[in-house]
Parts: sequence; C-alpha cells; structure tokens
Amino acid sequence: MKTYTIAVLPGDGIGPEVMAEAEKVLAKIAGKYDLSFNFTPADVGGIAIDRHGKALPEDTVETCRKADAVLFGSVGGPKWETLPPEEQPERGALLPLRKIFGLFANLRPAIVFPQLKEASPLKAGIIGEGFDVMVVRELTGGIYFGQPKGNDGVKGFDTMVYTADEIERIGRLAFETARRRNSRLVSIDKANVLSTMVLWRQVITKLGAEYPDVSLSHMYVDNAAMQLVRNPRQFDVMLCGNMFGDILSDEASMITGSLGMLPSASLAEASEGELPFGLYEPSGGSAPDIAGQGIANPIAQILSAGMLLKYSLGLDKAYDDIYAAIEGVLDEGYRTADIMSPGMKQIGTGEMGDRIAGKI
Amino acid sequence: MKTYTIAVLPGDGIGPEVMAEAEKVLAKIAGKYDLSFNFTPADVGGIAIDRHGKALPEDTVETCRKADAVLFGSVGGPKWETLPPEEQPERGALLPLRKIFGLFANLRPAIVFPQLKEASPLKAGIIGEGFDVMVVRELTGGIYFGQPKGNDGVKGFDTMVYTADEIERIGRLAFETARRRNSRLVSIDKANVLSTMVLWRQVITKLGAEYPDVSLSHMYVDNAAMQLVRNPRQFDVMLCGNMFGDILSDEASMITGSLGMLPSASLAEASEGELPFGLYEPSGGSAPDIAGQGIANPIAQILSAGMLLKYSLGLDKAYDDIYAAIEGVLDEGYRTADIMSPGMKQIGTGEMGDRIAGKI
Ligand SMILES: [Mg+2]
Ligand SMILES: [Mg+2]
Repeated sequence: MKTYTIAVLPGDGIGPEVMAEAEKVLAKIAGKYDLSFNFTPADVGGIAIDRHGKALPEDTVETCRKADAVLFGSVGGPKWETLPPEEQPERGALLPLRKIFGLFANLRPAIVFPQLKEASPLKAGIIGEGFDVMVVRELTGGIYFGQPKGNDGVKGFDTMVYTADEIERIGRLAFETARRRNSRLVSIDKANVLSTMVLWRQVITKLGAEYPDVSLSHMYVDNAAMQLVRNPRQFDVMLCGNMFGDILSDEASMITGSLGMLPSASLAEASEGELPFGLYEPSGGSAPDIAGQGIANPIAQILSAGMLLKYSLGLDKAYDDIYAAIEGVLDEGYRTADIMSPGMKQIGTGEMGDRIAGKI
Repeated sequence: MKTYTIAVLPGDGIGPEVMAEAEKVLAKIAGKYDLSFNFTPADVGGIAIDRHGKALPEDTVETCRKADAVLFGSVGGPKWETLPPEEQPERGALLPLRKIFGLFANLRPAIVFPQLKEASPLKAGIIGEGFDVMVVRELTGGIYFGQPKGNDGVKGFDTMVYTADEIERIGRLAFETARRRNSRLVSIDKANVLSTMVLWRQVITKLGAEYPDVSLSHMYVDNAAMQLVRNPRQFDVMLCGNMFGDILSDEASMITGSLGMLPSASLAEASEGELPFGLYEPSGGSAPDIAGQGIANPIAQILSAGMLLKYSLGLDKAYDDIYAAIEGVLDEGYRTADIMSPGMKQIGTGEMGDRIAGKI
C-alpha cells in the first residue's frame, strides 16, 4: 500500500477545527484508493510563538522537509499583533516557508459552485452555472523582488525583471496545469509597453509549441481586468507574473463572492517527471472571532487538501471526488453560517466535514 | 462677452457625426451663460493622412496651440491599418499631441446613469441608483516610460520610477478634482512591497495636509481591483500611477457596462491659479462600421465637451447642466441603438443631440 506523508500545520484561529475536517475527508480518500496517509502535525504561527518562541520552529521545518506535501491551516490573531512585523505569525511563518522550499508558483482557483452563485456580485446571466478559473501566479520574481529598488524621498524606483528561465519555469507549470483542466491557457502580459513582458510573451509562445494540446492565447493585463468582470467563464487557466497575478487573482476571487471557500497552493519546482512539493492552504484568514465555536466553514481547507492530492500526489480523481462531494452536500441544502441563505439547512463545522466525507 | 476658442478635431469614423452634436450642445451652453465659443476645426487622424500626408499636421498643432482646449473626436479605421504603426492615426496623432502639450494626467470617469444601470455586469443591489467614479491616472511617468528598460532574449527588465515632484503634480490635480466632486480621494499604491509606492504614499499623505476638506485614504491596488467589483459606490476619486491607472480605469469602465458612453480628459500642468489646457475625447473608438449612418451615440462626445467646460474653463455648472440634460433625455426613454432596450424609443444621432441640447 502506497503511503504518503503529509505535514499538517493547523496554526491558529479556526485552523485546527477546519483541519480536523480535512483529515476526515483525506481518511476516506485513503480508504477508497487503497493508500495511506501519514499525518505529521507541527506547530506554526501564533501557537508556535507561544510554545517555541518563534512562528516557524526548526522542528516544523524538519517535519515539512520529510513530508510529501504540507497542509497548512491559517495563522495569526490579535494576541500576536503587537509583535514586530517580521516576528508576527504570517510574515514569520509563510515567507520563510516559501523561501526554504522554493515555492515559486501560486495557484489560486476562483470557484463559483452553482449552488452558491447567488453570492457573486456579478449578474446571474454572466455567472451562468458557476465557473472555475485558475490563476497561476509567479511568486518569487518580478517587480516585487527585482533589484535595484529604493526611495530617497526625492525619487522612488523598482525594477521589474524576469529571466527567460524564470518565465519558462512558471510557464511550464501553467501549461501542465491547463492540461489537467480544460486545456485552455491565457497568458497575461503588457507586451505593448513593457520590455519584460515582450520577453514573457516570446518565451510563453515558444513553450506553447511543446503543448500543442493546450490552446494558448495572450491578453493584456488591463483587458484581463475587464474580461474577468465581463465574462469570467471565458477563462480556464490564467498565467501571470507576480504583480499582475496579485491583482487579477484578488479580482477573480472577489468575483466569486465566496472568498471564504477558496483554496490555494504554493508549489516548488519539480524534478523531471516528478510532481512538485507544495504547501496548500485556504485563501482566507484565521478568523479568530469565530474560532472554537464549531461554526467555521471547512470547505476551503478541504478543497486545499484536494489540491494537495492533485498537484503534489497526482491523484486527480481524488480531487474530483472531493469537489463532487462538496457539490453534493451543497445540493442537499447544507450550509455553514457564512454561506447560509433562506430555505437552507444550517450546520456546524463538524457536520459539514462528516457530510462531505460521507460522500467520498 | 467672454469668448473661448475650442479646437475641434473630429477625426475619423463616427467622429464628425457625434462632434456636430457636441457643438449643438455647446452652442446652447453659450446662450445660457452669455459667453461665446469660437470653434476652430482641424484635421486629425486618417483624414489628415489622406489630405496632408500625416496624422497630426503642423497646422493642426497650431490650431490647438491657439485654443483654450481641444475637443477631439476619434481616429482610425481599416483604411489606415496597413500603415507602419507609428504612422497610423492613433499613434501618429494622440501620442505626439500628449507630448507636445505635456498632457500628464488622464481623467476617466466611470459613470452608470440610473436609467442604464441594467447594462452593468454587477447586480442591481450593488449598482443601486448608479455611480460616478473618477479615475485620475498619471500618464507620462511610471514603469511604462521609466529607464532603463530592455530585453536581450535572456533577461527582460523595466523600471518603475516616480519623483516626488511628479507625484505631487498628479496628486494636486487629484485633490483639486475631488474638491470639485464629492471631496473623497482614495490614493492607490502598493506601498507594502514597492519602494516607488512608499514615496507615492509619503508625498500624497503630506499633500493631504493642504487639502483638509478632502477626505484622503490609501488602498493597495490588488484590494482596489476587488473593491471596484464589491462596491464601486464607495469611490469618488481614485488616484493612480500610470500602470495601476491603466488597469483600474479599464476595470471601472467595464463595470459600468456602457463603454460607449464614457468621456475622458488628458490635462496639462496649469500655472498657479489657472485652469489646465486639456484634450477631451470619448473613451471609445471611431466605430467605422457604423459611421455615416446617423445611428452613433453622441453622449460620450457630449460628456467630453462637458468635461472640457468644467476642467479647462471652470464652468462646473455647465457640466452639471449637460449631465442633467442627458439624464432627462434618458428618463424620457430615448435611446440610440447601442443602448436600446425593450420599451424604450430608439432615435438617431441627430435627434439625441437635439434632445439633449433642448434641455439645456
Ligand atoms: Mg493580493
Ligand atoms: Mg488600458
């Protein structure tokens, strides 16, 4: 029986509660596919500060290093907000994790389940029966990190820079991702005015020849910001550099109207023929205000576990099972408080997890 | 009687037709406010290429130079698309005009008239009774023009750069604009990661002390892309650098659902106590496919004339008159073909202009 080791870092706030539900669902997946998960828990964020003096203890890093992938909950809360910024749970845990494990790619799906389409700020005619757009964002390069940058009070400057290798690396991941979805890739750039983006388009176009089964097109970032509003269903996978991905992934997630439902993945470079190591976490925060009440929505955490199965373990069908199970439970009218609407049946965190697991 | 000289550059496609309607409306404004307009026509764009061999003849530049402001129609069409890019109507006319007259600021309102709110892709509950957001975009600096930039096929790079003076110049214009609207200004930046934007926030914050009557706040660009979708009515004036303004003004215009209705202004720096020289034009294109049929919507051109009155001539009340006249005609159910909906009365370009002029 194949065994996978998953580092489980629940963190703070609602993290531990929703993580328990994700583990329930993963246990059912193990049974169905005749494999086993070895969950190795570790402290991260505020709880790690309290217990070990820092947001990312060495032991936690070691636990992650030994794992096939990391399932991350959420970190932070008012208790740690008075610490210096770099010691706070978010900065002190996530930035070092990205760096240590070379997590250069951010995958952020913007999903509208048909059962929750009312939540979108867009009209029903545009949402149709829901949508599922994947934004693939380069996370370690571009203008946020390019050198030189500075500000002497008279002049401020930053450098947008990408090498062909960096573009090819994220491009390849986007093509592979599109291949495992609906094989349509839109590469976002601003090649009409930015030299960096001229190179971006050259590299992605050339790479496209290796993926003849993926339909590739190019779109300027300002037009993409419009098209997401006009017709988000036109997109399957959107490939973006760091800054454009920051802007468009946020816009796309807002268009779903269900920010608390969205998972995300941060992936490392994979060796030839292997799947990438990755860290999987809900897009939302730790929601300390509702922690411990058993009312948090575990779906983002469960979907994050689903992404882990798909993108780090190659279990595409298991991801589809989880997605379908969530749809099934939503179809039956079950809702946690955050997505409750008239006529539906309100349930708690644990029951939502049980019901989803029950459909695997 | 005060006389203003307005350079009238109708250009190509529907430009001449809709310009005629804007002139009608301006004539009524002249009568109402006991002033006179001296319209000085000049060729620009494709027609200038045909008649004079270039998109922006010297005579046209001279005509603009002698005017208080420029009312521009639209340029371009299939006839000139085979020319080299820099000779084509758009690049060959607008870019030089911007440069010659130092048009460093772009004002792009995103207006949803209550009568046309159905056109927005956003839900009725979000649109409410319509909105009117003004995006003030710096147009001559930032990463689109910053040096160095380059691409050798291995590495591509661009430089985002702003000086404190450049930021103060556009900032002042944004504060002045907010003062003549609803006195709320949101400055868009990314000060958490970009050094240029740290300076941007410093300069704008300091400038805010000179405008205590304007409520100033700051918002990251990725959040702004979300907030425009979530609740556009929260905004009065949004101040942006060149690239962020490019993205957000397009997103904001798409949210109106009526791109063909929107005016724009490009303004020069004004001397102390004076109003800026400016070029005013519809946001949309020359629509050669419907040119000459008398069915084009003249409202964007008429609103552009209204902006000219307000921003270059200081006639704020005349702008309000035009805005109210458009609302009045829409209230009566009159629509051009592009904004026609069931139960409304379809009319042509000339009748729309007559009806709006009739309400001044
Ligand atoms: Mg963001
Ligand atoms: Mg644009």
